[in-house]
Amino acid sequence: MSLENPPRVLVLHGPNLNMLGLREPEIYGRTTLADIDAGLVAMGCELRIAVETFQSNHEGELVSKIQEARGRCAALLINAGAYTHTSVALLDAILAAGLPVIEVHLSNLYKREPFRHHSYIARAAVGQICGFGADSYLLGLRAALGVIKKA
Amino acid sequence: MSLENPPRVLVLHGPNLNMLGLREPEIYGRTTLADIDAGLVAMGCELRIAVETFQSNHEGELVSKIQEARGRCAALLINAGAYTHTSVALLDAILAAGLPVIEVHLSNLYKREPFRHHSYIARAAVGQICGFGADSYLLGLRAALGVIKKA
Amino acid sequence: MSLENPPRVLVLHGPNLNMLGLREPEIYGRTTLADIDAGLVAMGCELRIAVETFQSNHEGELVSKIQEARGRCAALLINAGAYTHTSVALLDAILAAGLPVIEVHLSNLYKREPFRHHSYIARAAVGQICGFGADSYLLGLRAALGVIKKA
Amino acid sequence: MSLENPPRVLVLHGPNLNMLGLREPEIYGRTTLADIDAGLVAMGCELRIAVETFQSNHEGELVSKIQEARGRCAALLINAGAYTHTSVALLDAILAAGLPVIEVHLSNLYKREPFRHHSYIARAAVGQICGFGADSYLLGLRAALGVIKKA
Amino acid sequence: MSLENPPRVLVLHGPNLNMLGLREPEIYGRTTLADIDAGLVAMGCELRIAVETFQSNHEGELVSKIQEARGRCAALLINAGAYTHTSVALLDAILAAGLPVIEVHLSNLYKREPFRHHSYIARAAVGQICGFGADSYLLGLRAALGVIKKA
Amino acid sequence: MSLENPPRVLVLHGPNLNMLGLREPEIYGRTTLADIDAGLVAMGCELRIAVETFQSNHEGELVSKIQEARGRCAALLINAGAYTHTSVALLDAILAAGLPVIEVHLSNLYKREPFRHHSYIARAAVGQICGFGADSYLLGLRAALGVIKKA
Amino acid sequence: MSLENPPRVLVLHGPNLNMLGLREPEIYGRTTLADIDAGLVAMGCELRIAVETFQSNHEGELVSKIQEARGRCAALLINAGAYTHTSVALLDAILAAGLPVIEVHLSNLYKREPFRHHSYIARAAVGQICGFGADSYLLGLRAALGVIKKA
Amino acid sequence: MSLENPPRVLVLHGPNLNMLGLREPEIYGRTTLADIDAGLVAMGCELRIAVETFQSNHEGELVSKIQEARGRCAALLINAGAYTHTSVALLDAILAAGLPVIEVHLSNLYKREPFRHHSYIARAAVGQICGFGADSYLLGLRAALGVIKKA
Amino acid sequence: MSLENPPRVLVLHGPNLNMLGLREPEIYGRTTLADIDAGLVAMGCELRIAVETFQSNHEGELVSKIQEARGRCAALLINAGAYTHTSVALLDAILAAGLPVIEVHLSNLYKREPFRHHSYIARAAVGQICGFGADSYLLGLRAALGVIKKA
Amino acid sequence: MSLENPPRVLVLHGPNLNMLGLREPEIYGRTTLADIDAGLVAMGCELRIAVETFQSNHEGELVSKIQEARGRCAALLINAGAYTHTSVALLDAILAAGLPVIEVHLSNLYKREPFRHHSYIARAAVGQICGFGADSYLLGLRAALGVIKKA
Amino acid sequence: MSLENPPRVLVLHGPNLNMLGLREPEIYGRTTLADIDAGLVAMGCELRIAVETFQSNHEGELVSKIQEARGRCAALLINAGAYTHTSVALLDAILAAGLPVIEVHLSNLYKREPFRHHSYIARAAVGQICGFGADSYLLGLRAALGVIKKA
Amino acid sequence: MSLENPPRVLVLHGPNLNMLGLREPEIYGRTTLADIDAGLVAMGCELRIAVETFQSNHEGELVSKIQEARGRCAALLINAGAYTHTSVALLDAILAAGLPVIEVHLSNLYKREPFRHHSYIARAAVGQICGFGADSYLLGLRAALGVIKKA
Repeated sequence: MSLENPPRVLVLHGPNLNMLGLREPEIYGRTTLADIDAGLVAMGCELRIAVETFQSNHEGELVSKIQEARGRCAALLINAGAYTHTSVALLDAILAAGLPVIEVHLSNLYKREPFRHHSYIARAAVGQICGFGADSYLLGLRAALGVIKKA
Repeated sequence: MSLENPPRVLVLHGPNLNMLGLREPEIYGRTTLADIDAGLVAMGCELRIAVETFQSNHEGELVSKIQEARGRCAALLINAGAYTHTSVALLDAILAAGLPVIEVHLSNLYKREPFRHHSYIARAAVGQICGFGADSYLLGLRAALGVIKKA
Repeated sequence: MSLENPPRVLVLHGPNLNMLGLREPEIYGRTTLADIDAGLVAMGCELRIAVETFQSNHEGELVSKIQEARGRCAALLINAGAYTHTSVALLDAILAAGLPVIEVHLSNLYKREPFRHHSYIARAAVGQICGFGADSYLLGLRAALGVIKKA
Repeated sequence: MSLENPPRVLVLHGPNLNMLGLREPEIYGRTTLADIDAGLVAMGCELRIAVETFQSNHEGELVSKIQEARGRCAALLINAGAYTHTSVALLDAILAAGLPVIEVHLSNLYKREPFRHHSYIARAAVGQICGFGADSYLLGLRAALGVIKKA
Repeated sequence: MSLENPPRVLVLHGPNLNMLGLREPEIYGRTTLADIDAGLVAMGCELRIAVETFQSNHEGELVSKIQEARGRCAALLINAGAYTHTSVALLDAILAAGLPVIEVHLSNLYKREPFRHHSYIARAAVGQICGFGADSYLLGLRAALGVIKKA
Repeated sequence: MSLENPPRVLVLHGPNLNMLGLREPEIYGRTTLADIDAGLVAMGCELRIAVETFQSNHEGELVSKIQEARGRCAALLINAGAYTHTSVALLDAILAAGLPVIEVHLSNLYKREPFRHHSYIARAAVGQICGFGADSYLLGLRAALGVIKKA
Repeated sequence: MSLENPPRVLVLHGPNLNMLGLREPEIYGRTTLADIDAGLVAMGCELRIAVETFQSNHEGELVSKIQEARGRCAALLINAGAYTHTSVALLDAILAAGLPVIEVHLSNLYKREPFRHHSYIARAAVGQICGFGADSYLLGLRAALGVIKKA
Repeated sequence: MSLENPPRVLVLHGPNLNMLGLREPEIYGRTTLADIDAGLVAMGCELRIAVETFQSNHEGELVSKIQEARGRCAALLINAGAYTHTSVALLDAILAAGLPVIEVHLSNLYKREPFRHHSYIARAAVGQICGFGADSYLLGLRAALGVIKKA
Repeated sequence: MSLENPPRVLVLHGPNLNMLGLREPEIYGRTTLADIDAGLVAMGCELRIAVETFQSNHEGELVSKIQEARGRCAALLINAGAYTHTSVALLDAILAAGLPVIEVHLSNLYKREPFRHHSYIARAAVGQICGFGADSYLLGLRAALGVIKKA
Repeated sequence: MSLENPPRVLVLHGPNLNMLGLREPEIYGRTTLADIDAGLVAMGCELRIAVETFQSNHEGELVSKIQEARGRCAALLINAGAYTHTSVALLDAILAAGLPVIEVHLSNLYKREPFRHHSYIARAAVGQICGFGADSYLLGLRAALGVIKKA
Repeated sequence: MSLENPPRVLVLHGPNLNMLGLREPEIYGRTTLADIDAGLVAMGCELRIAVETFQSNHEGELVSKIQEARGRCAALLINAGAYTHTSVALLDAILAAGLPVIEVHLSNLYKREPFRHHSYIARAAVGQICGFGADSYLLGLRAALGVIKKA
Repeated sequence: MSLENPPRVLVLHGPNLNMLGLREPEIYGRTTLADIDAGLVAMGCELRIAVETFQSNHEGELVSKIQEARGRCAALLINAGAYTHTSVALLDAILAAGLPVIEVHLSNLYKREPFRHHSYIARAAVGQICGFGADSYLLGLRAALGVIKKA
């Protein structure tokens, strides 16, 4: 890690995460996605990480975004939302990108419906953090820094 | 329900429904999607419901459309087509939208391949109507009216 | 459909539906079976359908009733209650009767216990309507009329 | 086997078999249940077996009939129809009756829907004959005679 | 619990239990159903419980009997026999009756065939007692008294 | 069926059936395979059927024998022994031979280990007879005659 | 049963039962383990049974305790708690001890999470009593007396 | 097949195939997608087939592209990538298009993770070719020609 | 690949493929195995491959033939027929032979019965080609050539 | 959170974690458990959390330790090791303790054997952090602080 | 065991074991089958056992060989290779032979593919030895001697 | 292997094995654990192996014992009893110990209840010997010697 160029971390938010704060607050809380992104950028300043964020409801756009991160970013922080459970395409994009991936979730998946217990992302991720609400992202950014330093 | 402003019902058609009338007529009949939309609008006039229709082959566009219906529509009538069986993202969008949802299908899913017997939409829908061809939509609009009146 | 003789639709109610209005109102509401039957007869008058109703807790009686409907009725509207999930005998009776069958349920089966997600009736039905309380029956009668007209 | 008193065989027909000849002739043929009973009685005369027949759509009536056969009949020939696949009560009645049971079916169950591949009756039967239409019963009566002679 | 009117407990025996003492004595012993009923009535006198008993081989009759117990009995003691494993209709009747239900079995179900390990009744029962032969009923009556007293 | 040329029925015995009479007599009895073949030939004389028998422990030989029966025999009576449960090759041979096939077994498969409950042969057979010891073959030959006459 | 030496019953409590009264009272109530033990000893006096109780969070200690009961106790009353579902070692200890075992549970296991529906203990127990809170133990002690008397 | 107008074959590449040559070369080799397309066009010249290629990471775009091929192309050559395993929408598009479809894969799916062993495409394809790297496409184009000639 | 000695490819045909042209023509067409072998030899001349063919109904003979190919052949083209789905012995023979194996099938296995969807051969094959009738073999020979050239 | 009394967090290490640094370093790295505990205490000083650590190979000791934490600690950080996958007793102890629990793992469980994908602990935990080696504990302590502050 | 006639042990080797030493040496080592047979004969001399060996790739030949061992051999030592997992015919042959059978395998089956974890042979064997390479056979011969002595 | 210091083999006996000779003699025989240990020590003398034995009913003690064997013993001989089927902790201890492990069982696990067919130990063991009673241990010690010599 050179001093001049802080490592870049791409934060990806999957479908419906743009509804955060509105959607099922008893599960996800009232923080909005903009709040989360602001918090990540702020912590990025503190930890000397360049944080870049992106949300999409489209599986294909998320795939393309991951492809473009190759060689440009040092790590990927991803909450793939519903695509966590159904998207082999995202898994393949991650495998192809060759980047360390940190998987985060707002809620504890293992306390919800059984179809949310399985993650395709987890097969290619360094690790997973779930259940801490917006803090899952912040912990994930710290984890990413640790991973980048060891690389 | 005020007299001046009829409730608005968004009718969503999933992937390949734009091919209706061409595609496997022995299962779906020869009615086109335009025919169905016209029939819904006509019945909407009769029942004093403002009917709005939308078709997309893109899971992400359907997700976004459901998000936009929040607070603007009184109910959602959805035939998610193939995404019925595979899209957790649509389920999450419906859960987040906080609208009553009526699920409809042209064919009786339970007489087809086993992978069509399961619906993610059904977990969040008020009810389901399937097997009556284009009439499934018209019955669904009546059902929506009943649900709106009780709300 | 001749003008003089309105088509006859047999409405069958399975076990425990005679308890309607008393039983688990949070799931089924407070409408009684007599209310439902009256509503069906009334709508039958409007739609020019002769509606005949029958309830039994006995699988065998329901089987026999279906057998007798053969050649005498134009369609069958059935809420088989618990026998929906366990009775191959009802399925066989329907297959033997050679009548179009409309399956209805008060509640959305797909939001309840997993053993209620499977229906033997659905294998032989034209279509299924569930989740709209007593309205499921009324929508079912309309659906039956559509099916009879097409036959 | 004394010469004066021919052994008595009770032939039980389960639900919907009273519809035989009407029901799905492509699977079951056009022979009626009366034809089958007459054929069994005739072969009974030839083989010196007193044949007694009974049909019911009611699981409970079939259970009671089996209970009454205890000590009065030498064997039971049963086509339990749909109850073959769902009735533990019939199995228990057979186990309690202590009679040799021959299970017969008109069609080859193993070429039909998977839920027809399993038989509770088979767990307590001497043997099974299926797939030969009305001949399944006649072969079954011969088989019963063999079983009685060996007893 | 008033002193004058002892609580009424309905004891239901399912299919084939009328054969008790004859049927598979190595599993069920030689006590008859009349013996069991007499024992229950006697203990009822001692515990000041009005005991009423009923046996049927018919699922529908058992359903109807449970429906009639509503408001008239304080608890239900049920050995549903084979219907334990197959009858959703009995489960629904119990749910609708709104009575505390004690489930009893003569044999230890969990040492028998796998299909006897599952009970629909258990989903709605206060508790289950199995494996103690006729004593299962007597223990069940004591258990019922405890449940009634707490209610 | 012409009077001069009696129809020919090929009887196939699968692996280990040559050990009959020696092998596990508590399940299969003491009759030898030669006894069974003699009984079949004798009954063939009576019923005017030319009976031809063949045993092999080799799956491939059984396949070849079935292939050769095509056009030469009127029906096939087969006890495939252990290959019943494992041989898709025998199933394909039967499908290719275009002959009516009667499946027989000495024991009632459904009372034995679970892996013996499934038969590949049954998918292509007219019907199945099992559980009557050597009588299964004799009943099978009668069944074959019925099938040939109807062809 | 001699008059001088009352039979000894060992009551075993598995892991976390020492927390009773504190732990999840909505499921288990507010009675403590000391209350239950006192109640058992009191009823033991009444029924002339010497009651001995033991609780451990250690699977191995429970195994050893069961081994030591061999020849010293007349029966075992066991609520194995969580080990009910996971411990083959306890099952083996019971099988080796050669004592009649009564299995009890405070809650109705069959209304809880699926992994609590299976009991290794049940394979070796005379019978099971569950769902009656602390009364399950008292009913179990009565059941034990019945079993000892019959032995 | 007229001489003037060579048949048109649409070649579809699913998600992440645009990364070919970069992505997991140990599985997919170093050939790029442009190389493959060039090879197909070249072989198309030789075989007199007009080859048209299209890649997308979007399920919806692939669905639309298939819909547009109807009536315009003679066959479809498709490597749906990750959507092979998850997309019922692509299956429905193919069923609706009424075109012969050749399914190809670079790697042998059956040597990879279990979730890659199932293909929705295969249910509607004429045949499948997998495991030969870029040659899978060239073999697929030859196969397409054979299919077109027979049509 | 030397100019003088063309590589040798062994083509193996499994059970019942000798019946080709006779057997279920609606699935396999009317081409005989001799036709296929002749076509392969002809294409072999063109591609400079020495083609050797062998058919057997015996699993053991196929195993032995594969063993003998070791060191003598450059590749193996195999349609194992029914043994595809049941033979671990063939899989082991292929693993031991150390030859590149191309798996071919006349029909698209994935459109047939579920037990034909699994292939033991596929675990050890370079790739699979199915669904193109006799063309599957010709495409397979081309594929073999590609594999040999790369080796 | 008062200034004087920092909240106490109990860190539990399950079986074999005492071998850390020796055991399978390619999965777990070379850090010892003492290193991890020292790191946690150090970070505890920084975050003003009193950190207490405990390791045991005994399921029962871990259960007892959790019971003792009730009312004394503000949160529990647990890496239950192998007991994660097998111990219902630990789950019950956590449910009884009424403390917020943070589940951590050194490795990403979802990339290992399938039996390590399921966690009983997760059913009762606030959240899970896995895959970051010793950093999983440090991130977990930060997560615990967030949870305590919100409580 | 008489002094003059040493007991005879038949050693059977299943398919592909004739390739030993050539085949996948990383799993099976470089010892040939001749080496193993020689080792067994040598140890037989030492232990006074007459060792006879046989290898076949044909399931039917192995079945026949087992049948012939009946009454002639004192025990059977079998490594059925791939047929271990697929051959019910071998199981039946062993059951019919009435000989003690020792099952051996070169590799530890439980560390290989799941389909190699199940053995039909094990259902009829005295015991199993696997994982010790050629030593598995030698240990098996010693085990056989122990079994013979106890018989 | 130096001449002075014979290799040390730790023999571990799991829960309930201390009851050997008392417990279910029809399965395990009458030999006691002391007999087995004496036999192992005696054979150890003969084979020049230092044999050390240990039995515990506690999973945690067995785990600790395995940990201590690291670097001190040359091999581990383990009969984990019931923990074979349930203990991931033992598996992890073995993986961490880095010792060759020989798994032994008195009975043939594959002839007992299905839950005894699976072994966690087998995943980490060199090989398995089961079914030979006390001889399983002696054969296991010989196997251990072979493994040590090859190491």
